[in-house]
Amino acid sequence: MQIDVFATADDVKVEKIRGKVAIVIDAFRATSTVITALWNGCKGVIPAYDIEQAKAKAIQLPPGQYLLGGERNAVMIEGFDLGNSPLEYRSKEIIGKYVILTTTNGTKALHHGSSASKVITAGFLNGEAVVEHILKNSFQDIVIICAGTEGNFSMEDILCAGKIINDLLNKTKDMQCNDLAVAAQNLYQNNKRDMEGLLRRTYHYNKLVSLGFKQDIDYCLQEDICPIIPLFANGVIVPAG
Amino acid sequence: MQIDVFATADDVKVEKIRGKVAIVIDAFRATSTVITALWNGCKGVIPAYDIEQAKAKAIQLPPGQYLLGGERNAVMIEGFDLGNSPLEYRSKEIIGKYVILTTTNGTKALHHGSSASKVITAGFLNGEAVVEHILKNSFQDIVIICAGTEGNFSMEDILCAGKIINDLLNKTKDMQCNDLAVAAQNLYQNNKRDMEGLLRRTYHYNKLVSLGFKQDIDYCLQEDICPIIPLFANGVIVPAG
Repeated sequence: MQIDVFATADDVKVEKIRGKVAIVIDAFRATSTVITALWNGCKGVIPAYDIEQAKAKAIQLPPGQYLLGGERNAVMIEGFDLGNSPLEYRSKEIIGKYVILTTTNGTKALHHGSSASKVITAGFLNGEAVVEHILKNSFQDIVIICAGTEGNFSMEDILCAGKIINDLLNKTKDMQCNDLAVAAQNLYQNNKRDMEGLLRRTYHYNKLVSLGFKQDIDYCLQEDICPIIPLFANGVIVPAG
Repeated sequence: MQIDVFATADDVKVEKIRGKVAIVIDAFRATSTVITALWNGCKGVIPAYDIEQAKAKAIQLPPGQYLLGGERNAVMIEGFDLGNSPLEYRSKEIIGKYVILTTTNGTKALHHGSSASKVITAGFLNGEAVVEHILKNSFQDIVIICAGTEGNFSMEDILCAGKIINDLLNKTKDMQCNDLAVAAQNLYQNNKRDMEGLLRRTYHYNKLVSLGFKQDIDYCLQEDICPIIPLFANGVIVPAG
């Protein structure tokens, strides 16, 4: 098995992911929101590049069948039903409906992954389930695409990639990693008992705290509480299997 | 003090380094070669983008005043005097002469740094001297440009950046870091007692070992044996002060 990690969506060239399984991580908060929504009965999440595309996709669905969600600069978009806080996606309101979601970093990373043979979204919330899915399906070529923050390396995504690689290393021997995958695994292994100690020194963590989203961080850092595999195909993310 | 680390030369946009102090790291092996050459009496190192530019620069110097050095795909260039092994640059032959150097990753990173207000080259060999130079001159905005390997994140450069940041953190309190700088410092701190244990899992280390350059690696990983500050200005790298 070969696992390569990329720190931002912009680092991913098409030739590096064609025919491979892409795992997209935007731990704070887009992929955690997707996982939470699907785990709580949402029919499917439709990622949109921007606000206009989100509204255009909404017009194609019957009224009452969808909710509009997302953020710009971490804050809810005017006229939308939901923000990008995963905690909002645990409400009964989403059961059986589609969520059209547009976020700054996460949806961009998803679209960058679309030339892969398969695209899965991951977070701390479903890390173990993703590892089991990889092993059960004997995936051989895996690319982990971290969304990053504002185009830059973002610690929480790297730690989450590290969690997946660390778990895989505990369960399989035949594994090659690119250097960033080795770094991610080492960072997770050495900081898993106090991830916040490390995250308190980082940009996105502090930005979210300053905007009042500390509860979201606490939620997103919980490991393996939503054992679900969100699969992105034909423009919509639905639970695998 | 603000310290930002970038994993490859391509990650560095001009607006991110303008007016700042750039520290360029290509630990295996270009910047270690530069440090070694200057420490052993070389008059100055002239980095060249490619083989043609190296030859063009040679024509401008009197015969006997320069040596041509460098590598392509880690191997010495035909017709050149020296390769990119720092061990070659300890010979008496280089005393008082210029070295015109072209390497795959390192010279590219140096040229990317050229819109900074000052460009210093660093490696494990001179890390402590670089830290002292930063503190003595009260530099406030520092960008560490890792050369990377073949356009990708390369562990040895990140560990070397981490060494510099770790040493700075031990000596000064007022320091902000971007996420990659935090990651680099954490990786160095947790692996400094056995850097090779981590490097054995990485790409460039194994490529150099397979090409027979293990001695170069052992040399480049020595910390603080060449207390010198190579300063790149007006097309040539010379010792500061």
